[in-house]
Amino acid sequence: MANITKKVSWSSRADESGAAGEGTPLLNGSEQPRHSRQVQLAWWLTVRLTAVTPEESLDYDNIENQLFLEEERKMSYMGFRCLEISRWVVCGLIGFLTGLIACFIDIVVEQLAGIKYQVVKENIEKFTEVGGLSISLLLWAVLNSAIVMLGAIIVAFFEPIAAGSGIPQIKCYLNGIKIPRVVRLKEGPMIHSGAVVAAGVSQGRSTSLKRDFKIFEYFRRDTEKRDFVSAGAAAGVSAAFGAPVGGVLFSLEEGASFWNQMLTWRIFFASMISTFTLNFFLSIYHNKPGELSNPGLINFGRFQGDSVAYNLYEIPLFIAMGAIGGLLGALFNVLNYWLTIFRIRYVHRPCLQVMEAMLVAAVTATVSFTMIYFSNDCQPLGPEHTEEYPLQLFCADGEYNSMATAFFNTPERSVRSLFHNQPGTYNPLTLGLFTLTYFFLACWTYGLAVSAGVFIPSLLIGAAWGRLCGILLATITPDGSIWADPGKYALIGAAAQLGGIVRMTLSLTVIMVEATGNVTYGLPIMLVLMTAKIVGDYFVEGLYDIHIKLQSVPFLHWEAPATSHWLTAREVMSSPVTCLNRIEKVGTIVDTLSNTSTNHNGFPVVVKVSGSDEPPKLCGLILRSQLIVLLKHKVFVELARSRLTQRKLQLKDFRDAYPRFPPIQSIHVSQDERECMMDLTEFMNATPYTVPQETSLPRVFKLFRALGLRHLVVVDDENRVVGLVTRKDLARYHLGKHGLEELQLAQT
Amino acid sequence: MANITKKVSWSSRADESGAAGEGTPLLNGSEQPRHSRQVQLAWWLTVRLTAVTPEESLDYDNIENQLFLEEERKMSYMGFRCLEISRWVVCGLIGFLTGLIACFIDIVVEQLAGIKYQVVKENIEKFTEVGGLSISLLLWAVLNSAIVMLGAIIVAFFEPIAAGSGIPQIKCYLNGIKIPRVVRLKEGPMIHSGAVVAAGVSQGRSTSLKRDFKIFEYFRRDTEKRDFVSAGAAAGVSAAFGAPVGGVLFSLEEGASFWNQMLTWRIFFASMISTFTLNFFLSIYHNKPGELSNPGLINFGRFQGDSVAYNLYEIPLFIAMGAIGGLLGALFNVLNYWLTIFRIRYVHRPCLQVMEAMLVAAVTATVSFTMIYFSNDCQPLGPEHTEEYPLQLFCADGEYNSMATAFFNTPERSVRSLFHNQPGTYNPLTLGLFTLTYFFLACWTYGLAVSAGVFIPSLLIGAAWGRLCGILLATITPDGSIWADPGKYALIGAAAQLGGIVRMTLSLTVIMVEATGNVTYGLPIMLVLMTAKIVGDYFVEGLYDIHIKLQSVPFLHWEAPATSHWLTAREVMSSPVTCLNRIEKVGTIVDTLSNTSTNHNGFPVVVKVSGSDEPPKLCGLILRSQLIVLLKHKVFVELARSRLTQRKLQLKDFRDAYPRFPPIQSIHVSQDERECMMDLTEFMNATPYTVPQETSLPRVFKLFRALGLRHLVVVDDENRVVGLVTRKDLARYHLGKHGLEELQLAQT
Repeated sequence: MANITKKVSWSSRADESGAAGEGTPLLNGSEQPRHSRQVQLAWWLTVRLTAVTPEESLDYDNIENQLFLEEERKMSYMGFRCLEISRWVVCGLIGFLTGLIACFIDIVVEQLAGIKYQVVKENIEKFTEVGGLSISLLLWAVLNSAIVMLGAIIVAFFEPIAAGSGIPQIKCYLNGIKIPRVVRLKEGPMIHSGAVVAAGVSQGRSTSLKRDFKIFEYFRRDTEKRDFVSAGAAAGVSAAFGAPVGGVLFSLEEGASFWNQMLTWRIFFASMISTFTLNFFLSIYHNKPGELSNPGLINFGRFQGDSVAYNLYEIPLFIAMGAIGGLLGALFNVLNYWLTIFRIRYVHRPCLQVMEAMLVAAVTATVSFTMIYFSNDCQPLGPEHTEEYPLQLFCADGEYNSMATAFFNTPERSVRSLFHNQPGTYNPLTLGLFTLTYFFLACWTYGLAVSAGVFIPSLLIGAAWGRLCGILLATITPDGSIWADPGKYALIGAAAQLGGIVRMTLSLTVIMVEATGNVTYGLPIMLVLMTAKIVGDYFVEGLYDIHIKLQSVPFLHWEAPATSHWLTAREVMSSPVTCLNRIEKVGTIVDTLSNTSTNHNGFPVVVKVSGSDEPPKLCGLILRSQLIVLLKHKVFVELARSRLTQRKLQLKDFRDAYPRFPPIQSIHVSQDERECMMDLTEFMNATPYTVPQETSLPRVFKLFRALGLRHLVVVDDENRVVGLVTRKDLARYHLGKHGLEELQLAQT
Repeated sequence: MANITKKVSWSSRADESGAAGEGTPLLNGSEQPRHSRQVQLAWWLTVRLTAVTPEESLDYDNIENQLFLEEERKMSYMGFRCLEISRWVVCGLIGFLTGLIACFIDIVVEQLAGIKYQVVKENIEKFTEVGGLSISLLLWAVLNSAIVMLGAIIVAFFEPIAAGSGIPQIKCYLNGIKIPRVVRLKEGPMIHSGAVVAAGVSQGRSTSLKRDFKIFEYFRRDTEKRDFVSAGAAAGVSAAFGAPVGGVLFSLEEGASFWNQMLTWRIFFASMISTFTLNFFLSIYHNKPGELSNPGLINFGRFQGDSVAYNLYEIPLFIAMGAIGGLLGALFNVLNYWLTIFRIRYVHRPCLQVMEAMLVAAVTATVSFTMIYFSNDCQPLGPEHTEEYPLQLFCADGEYNSMATAFFNTPERSVRSLFHNQPGTYNPLTLGLFTLTYFFLACWTYGLAVSAGVFIPSLLIGAAWGRLCGILLATITPDGSIWADPGKYALIGAAAQLGGIVRMTLSLTVIMVEATGNVTYGLPIMLVLMTAKIVGDYFVEGLYDIHIKLQSVPFLHWEAPATSHWLTAREVMSSPVTCLNRIEKVGTIVDTLSNTSTNHNGFPVVVKVSGSDEPPKLCGLILRSQLIVLLKHKVFVELARSRLTQRKLQLKDFRDAYPRFPPIQSIHVSQDERECMMDLTEFMNATPYTVPQETSLPRVFKLFRALGLRHLVVVDDENRVVGLVTRKDLARYHLGKHGLEELQLAQT
């Protein structure tokens, strides 16, 4: 224990406790300056994390009670085959629907952005000649704010969980933390959408829509649902970036601790179907049916041909850019962290949130307009220009304002133009100014009460300074021609910046490779992401981890802290434990469940050896949710005796109640009934995993994490219950700068 | 139990028991007709599975005894950081060396193949005019047989484990089965090489070379070694196909059951370094230093440009081709299965094996020559022909024999030319005949006593009939031009055939995508592999699984058979168990270890409650290997008392003995010493995982598989040992056509 140097309180909880009742947006969303597709669709639905409901853990270990075993034993081989086939069907459906949603979003955003930019463009053109461009600025700012207001109102007032990119929430869900309403009907960025679709489809019903199709009832438990949510998240990534393999790796990296070949294969299937669906419908929309050339929502264009291959001596440069990305990423994260703390303290009322979002939108428009206005970087308009809305402004005829291609455009298009435009399209000053302003705007934006991610803004910042690096290299070296392609450096810069912010590794490499359609850049991208992660981790954690920490959820990492062999189950466990007898008085159960001071979710079941004075021994484990269903159906020993024909409780009854079991307060138990007895034998998990008290923390951790447990019973050598280890007991320990630290989590 | 319909004996054991002493090559290698790189390098070293030494299990669960915990607790945070860094260094080294080996192999094979084909070509050209081509045939056959003889002699007489592709062996190793000498110095196909390099480097010593560098001693245990072997296998795949992501997925699909983000990232690092090293040195060899354009040994050429994108209506065609691949793959596997059985029965003497290999080589040359001789498919020699050794034979000047491009070439080149040659390069008859003959030759070849895989031959067969399909489609449809590119169908055919034979899924898709450098073919390849797997699985298992089964090793699949909820730990476990007391007589321990009839590897340690009549309770688990080290160092209670200064046994002593602990017979224990006592407290794992008797088989299986256990103690509710579950107990149950079947494994 000597290693535990201090107790640190997780920074946010203490401050926001007063405001918790109002639904403080602990994890806020972000808006991308200039209204990327996500922002513009923020009105299109939602959910959000509130601090009101304490998060629960999920149970990724099957509850093997007698009912479950009976059902499994009754099932024939064909039954299992059918189940397997329905899993595939569900995954196919998830992929299809996710692709469809992506397609819908793409088209709507395309249209909205088109209208907005067209209106502003015409207005600017009108007033460039006659003077009075301040009216154009006003129009732009008002248009921006109005769209954002719509999105922010929905998020802030109705579904706060739709804020942000949804990635931290999905990470938590796959880790085993139930964030209320995280997978209910909503729409946000694609990853989250995919997960929501998955949760809906796989359960064969929707609580939000109050429909139950009576199908897929077998899948109504945490284990199965998690698998489908993994598939959904993968399908989402796949649709967003046209990166099916990247999607699978994302799901695995963030979620599944136990890797299963068939599951992975199904996840891959969902991802593929999702890309394919998107591709297919977009090809119809673009009047080229069957051409399948739109792999993802975000298309970086293809890097092809030998002209862009890199050379060995460029690798140190790439690594240096990775380090820059790590530094800038760390700066971004620190700034955003302070901003988030500030928001938690002062900007927690919905109306304030909406106002902040509108302010950001207006400021973004103003800054963009100012930058464009004062820029004198004019470029000739090529015959096959990629700029959708070229602004002439004060440039000569046949030329356009280069700053406007970066600011007056959807971010995806800006990234694409930074990657692929001819050398000389941008001058260095434009890129430098753009990077600087956009960096702070993006940082301010992430955490707003709108539904938007950090991926595209990061890529855009990185592409801008990356391209700048490329141009500078070409300028300072004697033989500039060997650095012919600044687009290559834009790609590396984009990877470095994104890696420095989110700190994803394998999956991000693959996503970047798939999104650019070029395998040869795999090694440089990997090296860059690795460098960015190492450099960034030296200063501060990744953005998603920061936001997860601010939520103070008991997130379990991959391994126990390295120096935690000092600790054993004895020190880690919660003790004493509330145990129930195998045949227990209803009153005791009701009182135990109603005890708000403990609010436990799992109870070891013990049995006394008849005619002996020994303390009772462990014989099973039962969950709060199961007890509630038992109480609701009044499964009492006395009643069973009197009503012989009473229908036996089945697994179906538990499934129907899943996942929103009623609270104990809603169940009425009369004074007579309180004297009845309940026999838990059939319903408890008779073979819970146990560990002895001397088990070291890493060993407990490994068991817990590998099997996705929720409760682990600690027993002595006589098989008597001495404690219970839950997720919060394990998540407390944390490797800080001064060795092992013990954190105080909410309600430990 | 009603579901267990019959007991089946694994087909091979019974038959070969008589020959086991001779080292029957249960798992034989293959040769690719026409001496691909692997075959030609078969002389370049080896290892092999012998039936003599029974395979053991590996222990992927840390042995947490007091020594281990003390060491971990003494280690500072910096110590763990250093360990982490050395893991990265080791992975980098593994990648580097694997890449180097791949490079070396590539150059040597290139040279050898060059010489061979040049000599034969000149000879053929000489005799085409004057007649007497039979001499050329003879020359070719003799050259082939000579090279194969060299390889086969080394494999058959010295290192039989080098036979085959090495994939089944690595699969087993990662699954947790120790196949003697599987990771000792040898060379075979790249995957195996990578694994061997990893095992050598990570241990900081080589038993084969008898050198101990006294570094990386911490890594001398099964868990760490497995992680490095995973990295090595990935690096091997990566070098072979230029597919770093595919390599990682291969390792994960076949190996790691517990997915760890950092580990995966390290594996990816090794893969990347390996591709990069290969690429770098090959670019120097090809006089284009720094150009990095040779991603892998096997290069399919890049599919690029819009001309080769597929269309929606082609997807059903692709799926149909997948089904054909599944059928042909199943046929291939069935034929090879019969052949392997035949070999196990009749071709088990090394000299017979060498003769068979030579026969195959000679027949291959003869058949190839005959095909070329009678072919009248002449094609004009283009200006930038990809054929390295164009044979004119009886064609007009400026033309070459098309059959010869398929037969008279290294298989990689043949595949490449099938993928990329202009439409019209092959006529359908040539392709049809080639497919037919090559199919049977390849089938005969896999399982020979040479070191070669099935990947390239499968791809070649598939590419041939795939291209044939493409040509036929162009012929029968009115507007042939839309099927312009038969190369696309060759790719799909190759994927279908390979998928039908090996039944790999996700990793194979990614490998194919990376090797072709084109992301857009991801979906068709996935659909094709899926169809091939579904169709093939209907008839027979994958080739690797067939060979693993023929070895009768206790291979654990991902999940317990679906219908095994009937079984509980009570039925599955081995019982009664040989237990040791915590303080045990040396004589008892020696007798227990010497008992050849049981030959257990793990023993529960029990302790009697003092002054009570109750049966003893479980207090730990100790391994045979640990006991042997203890006996060797004479760690007896009496000696410790007399020699107070005696050095305390440390973890180092166990590590030095790892992994080849001496047999019990080699340890001399005098009659006096037999009366001494040994105190196991410090050395046993005091917190072994346990399960109650009622635990269902799937639950036991999940625990066992997820944590990579070797022994799982079954206890009753008083914590008394009632049984022990080992890998073999779990691997016995198998889902057959008639429900759950119980297999008889060797020495269950």
